[in-house]
Amino acid sequence: MDHITFVPTVEQMNYTFGGAEPVMRIKPGTVLTLWAEDAFGGRITSVDSVATVALDTEDLNPQTGPFWIEGAEPGDTLAIHLVDLTPARSWGASTLIPFFGGLTSIPVSPTLQEPLPERTWIYEYDSAARTVGFSARGSDFEVTLPANPMLGTVGVAPARREVRSSLVPEAFGGNMDSPDMTAGATCYLRVNVEGALFSLGDGHYRQGEGEACGTAVEGAMNITAIVDLIKGGGGPAWPRLETDTHLLAIGSGRPLEEAWRAGQVEMITWLGELYGLDRLDAYQLLTQIALAPIANVVDVNYSSATKIDKRLLPPAAAYGGIHAELRSAARALGAISYP
Amino acid sequence: MDHITFVPTVEQMNYTFGGAEPVMRIKPGTVLTLWAEDAFGGRITSVDSVATVALDTEDLNPQTGPFWIEGAEPGDTLAIHLVDLTPARSWGASTLIPFFGGLTSIPVSPTLQEPLPERTWIYEYDSAARTVGFSARGSDFEVTLPANPMLGTVGVAPARREVRSSLVPEAFGGNMDSPDMTAGATCYLRVNVEGALFSLGDGHYRQGEGEACGTAVEGAMNITAIVDLIKGGGGPAWPRLETDTHLLAIGSGRPLEEAWRAGQVEMITWLGELYGLDRLDAYQLLTQIALAPIANVVDVNYSSATKIDKRLLPPAAAYGGIHAELRSAARALGAISYP
Amino acid sequence: MDHITFVPTVEQMNYTFGGAEPVMRIKPGTVLTLWAEDAFGGRITSVDSVATVALDTEDLNPQTGPFWIEGAEPGDTLAIHLVDLTPARSWGASTLIPFFGGLTSIPVSPTLQEPLPERTWIYEYDSAARTVGFSARGSDFEVTLPANPMLGTVGVAPARREVRSSLVPEAFGGNMDSPDMTAGATCYLRVNVEGALFSLGDGHYRQGEGEACGTAVEGAMNITAIVDLIKGGGGPAWPRLETDTHLLAIGSGRPLEEAWRAGQVEMITWLGELYGLDRLDAYQLLTQIALAPIANVVDVNYSSATKIDKRLLPPAAAYGGIHAELRSAARALGAISYP
Amino acid sequence: MDHITFVPTVEQMNYTFGGAEPVMRIKPGTVLTLWAEDAFGGRITSVDSVATVALDTEDLNPQTGPFWIEGAEPGDTLAIHLVDLTPARSWGASTLIPFFGGLTSIPVSPTLQEPLPERTWIYEYDSAARTVGFSARGSDFEVTLPANPMLGTVGVAPARREVRSSLVPEAFGGNMDSPDMTAGATCYLRVNVEGALFSLGDGHYRQGEGEACGTAVEGAMNITAIVDLIKGGGGPAWPRLETDTHLLAIGSGRPLEEAWRAGQVEMITWLGELYGLDRLDAYQLLTQIALAPIANVVDVNYSSATKIDKRLLPPAAAYGGIHAELRSAARALGAISYP
Repeated sequence: MDHITFVPTVEQMNYTFGGAEPVMRIKPGTVLTLWAEDAFGGRITSVDSVATVALDTEDLNPQTGPFWIEGAEPGDTLAIHLVDLTPARSWGASTLIPFFGGLTSIPVSPTLQEPLPERTWIYEYDSAARTVGFSARGSDFEVTLPANPMLGTVGVAPARREVRSSLVPEAFGGNMDSPDMTAGATCYLRVNVEGALFSLGDGHYRQGEGEACGTAVEGAMNITAIVDLIKGGGGPAWPRLETDTHLLAIGSGRPLEEAWRAGQVEMITWLGELYGLDRLDAYQLLTQIALAPIANVVDVNYSSATKIDKRLLPPAAAYGGIHAELRSAARALGAISYP
Repeated sequence: MDHITFVPTVEQMNYTFGGAEPVMRIKPGTVLTLWAEDAFGGRITSVDSVATVALDTEDLNPQTGPFWIEGAEPGDTLAIHLVDLTPARSWGASTLIPFFGGLTSIPVSPTLQEPLPERTWIYEYDSAARTVGFSARGSDFEVTLPANPMLGTVGVAPARREVRSSLVPEAFGGNMDSPDMTAGATCYLRVNVEGALFSLGDGHYRQGEGEACGTAVEGAMNITAIVDLIKGGGGPAWPRLETDTHLLAIGSGRPLEEAWRAGQVEMITWLGELYGLDRLDAYQLLTQIALAPIANVVDVNYSSATKIDKRLLPPAAAYGGIHAELRSAARALGAISYP
Repeated sequence: MDHITFVPTVEQMNYTFGGAEPVMRIKPGTVLTLWAEDAFGGRITSVDSVATVALDTEDLNPQTGPFWIEGAEPGDTLAIHLVDLTPARSWGASTLIPFFGGLTSIPVSPTLQEPLPERTWIYEYDSAARTVGFSARGSDFEVTLPANPMLGTVGVAPARREVRSSLVPEAFGGNMDSPDMTAGATCYLRVNVEGALFSLGDGHYRQGEGEACGTAVEGAMNITAIVDLIKGGGGPAWPRLETDTHLLAIGSGRPLEEAWRAGQVEMITWLGELYGLDRLDAYQLLTQIALAPIANVVDVNYSSATKIDKRLLPPAAAYGGIHAELRSAARALGAISYP
Repeated sequence: MDHITFVPTVEQMNYTFGGAEPVMRIKPGTVLTLWAEDAFGGRITSVDSVATVALDTEDLNPQTGPFWIEGAEPGDTLAIHLVDLTPARSWGASTLIPFFGGLTSIPVSPTLQEPLPERTWIYEYDSAARTVGFSARGSDFEVTLPANPMLGTVGVAPARREVRSSLVPEAFGGNMDSPDMTAGATCYLRVNVEGALFSLGDGHYRQGEGEACGTAVEGAMNITAIVDLIKGGGGPAWPRLETDTHLLAIGSGRPLEEAWRAGQVEMITWLGELYGLDRLDAYQLLTQIALAPIANVVDVNYSSATKIDKRLLPPAAAYGGIHAELRSAARALGAISYP
């Protein structure tokens, strides 16, 4: 099993899914130990950082990658197992960007109202306690919250020759902002182009469901992942996620109910594959057991997860049990050290 | 503390919020022990029941109530504490109703496609094990699921002289279909008219988030609730819910992101009340701590919950600690017996 | 043919569809000469009138009616032919109401942004030239525009026992805000309750499609209409409109594409009735000939018209030619005089 | 003034905005005489052509271009004046593609319903009478309709390094499907990348507003256009269109109200530029004079036009009167002959 460490320079970072030259070619089964810059490009560094001054809106959400996966062809499925996510800085940042976020008007749905005031929050990350600290800016309120390191963005090159900004979540994955994209999860993505061209980034030290203001506790992240390839079969229509306890399908689109529908139908398909249920029975069962956490209501597309607790159902090995195998391989790696 | 038991006859059931004569007048603080028919009016009784034959679409989702709360005036807040929900039948039912549900076209958003086939499922309720049993209709798959008795519908009369079908969720509550509307929860609703005119119904023995096909495991329900009144203050703009562990605000509307926004802003207001946070700080904090389970994507309006784990935040007594008081009063009732 | 004149007192005005006692009972075929107050209740009278001070938000959009139509039963179709609309004042008004309109956040889809500033415009109505005058408030720009008197609101009582605010457009008609609701048009509405309970109001001296800011050139209106009844047949699912040159179907809902779909499918049904086209052929023909003017994007529901130029198609007499008959009866009335 | 004729081979056609090598470099002011294949790639040729058999879904909507405009830089505005559109075949085609169109479920908003049946219509184009003939497939109905040659697709390369399918309408133009994109119109697009990379295609011999079934009367088109460049100024946020009689701004997005909002705010900006109106006055004036024809409700994004009759307003020369100049230059070309 190859184990490759890669820390991109600023020039090596990419801002799209598709359209960028691969940073390297890897074999299926490779372990990647990576570093990813935060979505601000590291430019929000204190409560005095102001988004409209500090940020370059053409260079938001830098991705680490893309990686060319040898042998990956359209219709295959890429399995990305997140072994470990460790915050790479002692603080994370969140900021209000004018006309960006879920509770403001936005350029694609403009109103004539003034933007919200700008404000930045810095969260100290306590690596021992694994917490982040929130300090209100307008009053004295403070609270310490458990960290929940996750990746906002995991994706491959899109279909139909498209190239999409790293701000977009879609069928190819991308900026889904699901809090379930955390260490221990395996993400399944349909391969759309030769080599798959997989990349990831957008580390969040913590994020609520919906990511209301548009920016989580953003921070550079140390990442270890195993990338594997499932040949043939057509691939899932929408991203799937598997953890030891749950199955998820993540739809993205607008309005939000369309994202929900995409994730629901994807899960109905998956339940059919796993249990031989016809579509009406799977629809019924899903109605009674689904969890439906919203992932984000702030990006170019909104994302909605359909989530099932595996423990409610008989055991079934998705993709031949690849998640369990990758978990096992991850444990065999032992403690990860980052550069 | 008055304790009233009421089992409506078919003629006493109502199908609207607002517009119906109160079934009785009660004082704030009254304990109500009630029975509510299921949303099908009890007409789906076996897997051979077909919705288009069995159901009267003018008489769906019968409510128990309305109750006139003495002293309730517009701008007050009604607090309904659910003490106990006990399935009143040994089985629940779910059925596909043509052109109704989340994964079919619907009359208000029609396509030219044919409706889905009709199919009905019956779930045996095991009162000892507290489970419901799913049996696939198109294959041999069977699975036993934990029961989670909840109420789809809790509401008061709407504002602006309106009368709404009991199928509608809105600012007045109604058919929100939140799985958090369960025993132990206190629901806070703004009073819009003299007497509040509170009613409830739509028992579900179990339901997933989203209620995809439009019908949960529907079943008649024995209900015990304490109804209390918080005078003045204007009342919440959208329904709020409190449990021992969580705070929720439930927005309803279309498209789904509008329901989400309503719930989010309601929670920002609530966090401001509880912790003195200004709106930008509350927006930020919510971004990092909110849960966002979808309640339903199938009704006249969609419903989306914004949910916060109270244990993440410093202790704070909403509405002067009324939830804890009602919990205490509920415990003092001891075991509930139903007629 | 009865000819009744009715000018409501303030106490006789109503603010809902359904739920109000009829102001009188009339026979099918009756000519009504009416007066309707403007949507502001006449309270915006100068550029110094401020909506938040002048308006009573519980009493917006007063309707003239409802009229009980003798013999009207659910499933019948009411035909309301607008004979004449004459502005009843020498000026109309439009104003920005905070958190109301198409280019601001609104309570059902809130943001954290500040409301737009308030501003009022008064348009002088020149009855000889039939024009209204726009004067900018922030600069010296002035322009004279043709008047286009129309009614924002025409409707009957809703189905399912509901009562809706006069601000709502829906399957029962109501606040559709279509600029085609003008003199010479016949509006077809399904009867939902005994007596139909028809009312109208919301005079606009001029309005663009979409009614962007939420208020047209609002003005009291003198109205003459003939109300007729088409027995049986089930009635249209959504409001239909006929003029000498066009057929329209008006869908209302959220998001806007759902309103569009409802209107499109209604027109497909109508083309099937008129020309014997199956649904796929009617879908195809509609694709190539439909006009699709948006009516409003500001009300509780949005409204979208599907409009067909009758002159593109072979002659066909909708509802047995009732529009032509009513046009003829209207001409026979000669000049209308108002009280 | 250069006059270039270009008929692409199949290999020279492109299927994206952005991402393709320019077919040639031209100077601002060049006259282009072009041929564009239809959106089906010419593969639907008779009523027996079936979309699922005949079409290559990776190669839909071929574009003629892109053209590199010398000197074009981000923030400039490209002005494309359509001099002439002449159908290049004696027939056009329209077909139902499964899970594509406005009145069916679609992959990004799936339901569990079966697709609509497939059906194809061929319209004979009478070049003398300038008509197209509709023949129903399910009955004997026939009707002759005026042709209205237009282009579904006019666009430039997107911003943010993106590459989008030619099926997409967006801020860069693209597949807007506005029936106002016809001979005599000037389209203004913001330049996002060096050289602008302009292309066009998707000829429609006739189309209704909304393009309900997703395919107009599709046909290969002979096109003559003059391409000019307005240096600097930042460019419009959304596509603008000018004819002798109207100004239009076309927003695209989902849900449809967002497309509408984008077009409305763009027009408010334009009215401010032309008449010095502040944003509230422009909002008000737009409310009373806008036309709001829907362009399409079928593509990846929906498109909605905000349209103003210039004759209602004082004369004003947009972009220094470039439309009038281009009209004049077009007339000077005399009769166009196509290869």
